[in-house]
Amino acid sequence: MAKANITPRAEDYAQWYLDIVAAAEMAENSGVRGCMVIKPYGYAIWEAIQAALDRRIKATGHSNAYFPLLIPKSYLMKEAEHVEGFAPEVAEVTRAGGEELSEPYVIRPTSETIIGVSFAKWIKSWRDLPLLINQWANVMRWELRTRPFLRTTEFLWQEGHTAHATEEEAERETLMILNDVYADMVERVMAIPVLRGLKTEREKFAGALRTYAIEAMMQDGRALQAGTSHNLGQNFARSFEIKYTTADNREEFCWTTSWGASTRLIGALIMAHGDDDGLVLPPELAPVQIVCVPIYKTDDERGAVLAAINRLTENWGARFRWKLDDRAHLTPGFKFNEWEVKGVPLRIELGPRDIEKGTVALSRRDMPGREGKSFVTQDGLTERIEQLLAEMQQTLYDRALRFRAEHTFEAADYEEFKARVQQGFVHVYWAGTGADEDQIKTDTKATVRVLPFDQSETEGRCFYTGQRTKQQAIFARAY
Amino acid sequence: MAKANITPRAEDYAQWYLDIVAAAEMAENSGVRGCMVIKPYGYAIWEAIQAALDRRIKATGHSNAYFPLLIPKSYLMKEAEHVEGFAPEVAEVTRAGGEELSEPYVIRPTSETIIGVSFAKWIKSWRDLPLLINQWANVMRWELRTRPFLRTTEFLWQEGHTAHATEEEAERETLMILNDVYADMVERVMAIPVLRGLKTEREKFAGALRTYAIEAMMQDGRALQAGTSHNLGQNFARSFEIKYTTADNREEFCWTTSWGASTRLIGALIMAHGDDDGLVLPPELAPVQIVCVPIYKTDDERGAVLAAINRLTENWGARFRWKLDDRAHLTPGFKFNEWEVKGVPLRIELGPRDIEKGTVALSRRDMPGREGKSFVTQDGLTERIEQLLAEMQQTLYDRALRFRAEHTFEAADYEEFKARVQQGFVHVYWAGTGADEDQIKTDTKATVRVLPFDQSETEGRCFYTGQRTKQQAIFARAY
Repeated sequence: MAKANITPRAEDYAQWYLDIVAAAEMAENSGVRGCMVIKPYGYAIWEAIQAALDRRIKATGHSNAYFPLLIPKSYLMKEAEHVEGFAPEVAEVTRAGGEELSEPYVIRPTSETIIGVSFAKWIKSWRDLPLLINQWANVMRWELRTRPFLRTTEFLWQEGHTAHATEEEAERETLMILNDVYADMVERVMAIPVLRGLKTEREKFAGALRTYAIEAMMQDGRALQAGTSHNLGQNFARSFEIKYTTADNREEFCWTTSWGASTRLIGALIMAHGDDDGLVLPPELAPVQIVCVPIYKTDDERGAVLAAINRLTENWGARFRWKLDDRAHLTPGFKFNEWEVKGVPLRIELGPRDIEKGTVALSRRDMPGREGKSFVTQDGLTERIEQLLAEMQQTLYDRALRFRAEHTFEAADYEEFKARVQQGFVHVYWAGTGADEDQIKTDTKATVRVLPFDQSETEGRCFYTGQRTKQQAIFARAY
Repeated sequence: MAKANITPRAEDYAQWYLDIVAAAEMAENSGVRGCMVIKPYGYAIWEAIQAALDRRIKATGHSNAYFPLLIPKSYLMKEAEHVEGFAPEVAEVTRAGGEELSEPYVIRPTSETIIGVSFAKWIKSWRDLPLLINQWANVMRWELRTRPFLRTTEFLWQEGHTAHATEEEAERETLMILNDVYADMVERVMAIPVLRGLKTEREKFAGALRTYAIEAMMQDGRALQAGTSHNLGQNFARSFEIKYTTADNREEFCWTTSWGASTRLIGALIMAHGDDDGLVLPPELAPVQIVCVPIYKTDDERGAVLAAINRLTENWGARFRWKLDDRAHLTPGFKFNEWEVKGVPLRIELGPRDIEKGTVALSRRDMPGREGKSFVTQDGLTERIEQLLAEMQQTLYDRALRFRAEHTFEAADYEEFKARVQQGFVHVYWAGTGADEDQIKTDTKATVRVLPFDQSETEGRCFYTGQRTKQQAIFARAY
């Protein structure tokens, strides 16, 4: 049964999403157009995502740094495709310190241009390469239609920027980030399976040679781009004069990459795992993995129950992120509801009868109601919970993978495509042009999400143009 | 002997500072007025400061959250003193998405106003109090004269914002942050002793009831404000309608606080411990605590030396932050210099003769030259290093404390004051007015840094007005 303040998914999926964001106290709108306030619970989830990404970014040899928020407008103008892509959606600072500025600044929509200026200074010889930098920052893109986490005017992200001596090394970096940093984090920590592949020309980053992406399926069958990695070729290197001297003393332009993942990931998390009762968090990511709710009537009972919980949880500090909810003025039912809405993986109840019997009641968030509740002995509880958390992590991943398989279709022709793409991903042979993509988007709202890495060797017929081709594509409506 | 690219302190202290920032690759100027680029080594130090502060902020019950970068100009106007203090130095966004905005936004110079709007929504009853929030963010104040880390147009900081039911609780919070979070971190982790006390009316935060600060002495005798904590009284609560219902159902305004520490702390670090050879980092904070430099001539020697280092450092991953500098194209001398400039606490050299003798050469950064170099046995090296790092942490703190004591003076009259305040802190009886403070600043550039908590009970004569008073003050020229 759905919670009173959460619209069921089947009734109105978009409203369900907004209700979860509000009920789980993740974010709220602000007085600034399109900007949200990320509330403590939402921010704790972002901190967990940050930590998991930052660990991987550093383990693969990158260092964090910080570049200015403001970008001189002239920098943005230097790369032709880039300015065309971003100029329409920037916010501009035209006054400061009480005076009109002679040259306006834009608030960074992304930092290729300002970082390009630094890279040109930092890189002299082949020994300075590869240069592997990452930045955690806020960026701003003036969007017309916004939705918390999914699309906001200001958002938080990391943006990696690297420079290499050869095209091959830049390509290897671009793919390594996609696979070993983004896909690895999203699949293992967030328990969301992703498709990996190349973006079409129409969908690539403004100024890139090639954009790769990971795409996740939400429970309404739509796609959410969960991370992108761009091989920028020598485009930005030429615009910003990022050059190096080779071992045999020639001067060459560098090959650069950039890649980003943002607070959008929190939107993916909600829509990949959430249910009609609220958020469902994978244990690896959950800020609180276990909540203990004491059950008692009298003060004596309260004392005994809290003492029993104390004993049981003695060594949990180093093993689990857990919380004792001992708020005296709230009923257990109220607490159950609150932690369910917030998606805490495991709930433990312990009352006077449990003390007698040496048991606790254990409820799994991923299995609502009776199915997920069991009474287990206090002996060996810690090990049992460790097992259970690992099992739940796998269950969530498997469930999302099964859901995606059940909502991924083929389509022999455009009519079949139109029907199928309303229900999920459509995996097709594709030989169309950018103009064809535009037409399909106009007709169906669907776009090519990726040309997946995982391509079969066989040839087939393009559902749209009828041409024979080996190229396959995943189409979907996207967030 | 000073390094070629670092001006000695005695020759030009301000240039010495800039030289260290450049030579240690901490930051550089950008194309944006007054904004710096924080380079990887500088940012790693900021990450260490962040981690140490964040741990303390969370341990004292605060949660992180995130509020918009932009503030509607009308919000800033709501608290009279606040707007007067900050309006002259804000940057304004007047165009966005290609259109003029009907109401301009300012880039946050600090977030009391935008957070006040959220607090008014979040707080309903006494049960919602205290509300304890912190934000890690970039802020912007359009400064005329900037210097890397010390004063930049954009800087990174944390800003805590809390709301309480009573004045007493708000005061307790304000002081707890000053003592248990800021002073504790700066003294224990950064090894910089601080004075704690109250700011005068003239020096307090715009809109606060009372501002408390910690002040550190730099090696030129000037003060650096290393953290401030403000009791905002009910000023912001009244302007933003931050109200709560008491247990007996009355409506009351909350009492709020705010407190911040920023990338300025990196400036303090440089100027408290640095020497003519470069940065000197306290082991607790250093991103790299130990660097190992292999000494060899032939490839065979190289193999044997690296194998020996491998054996010695086997279990260091969990104990130390350490680095093997095995770059083959650089001489040991070049490496020594680089890590000295970067302030790495300990250097270990190991060569073929050390393998024979079962020793390593150990060099302490806090004792340059022969005095800090010793040859020790490989047996028990790990334990010896642990001891040594703890000892160096204490040494740096003690040295800074002694320096402060040697540069803190008394002054019986204004003539003596004028001479003394060029050399360090002046600890005096003080019964002057705000106008007197202005006059003293005009005459000497010195300001009241704090009315220290540590006040003696005896009465004395104010050096400036000649009045008898119990109040004492610390004057200094400040960064």
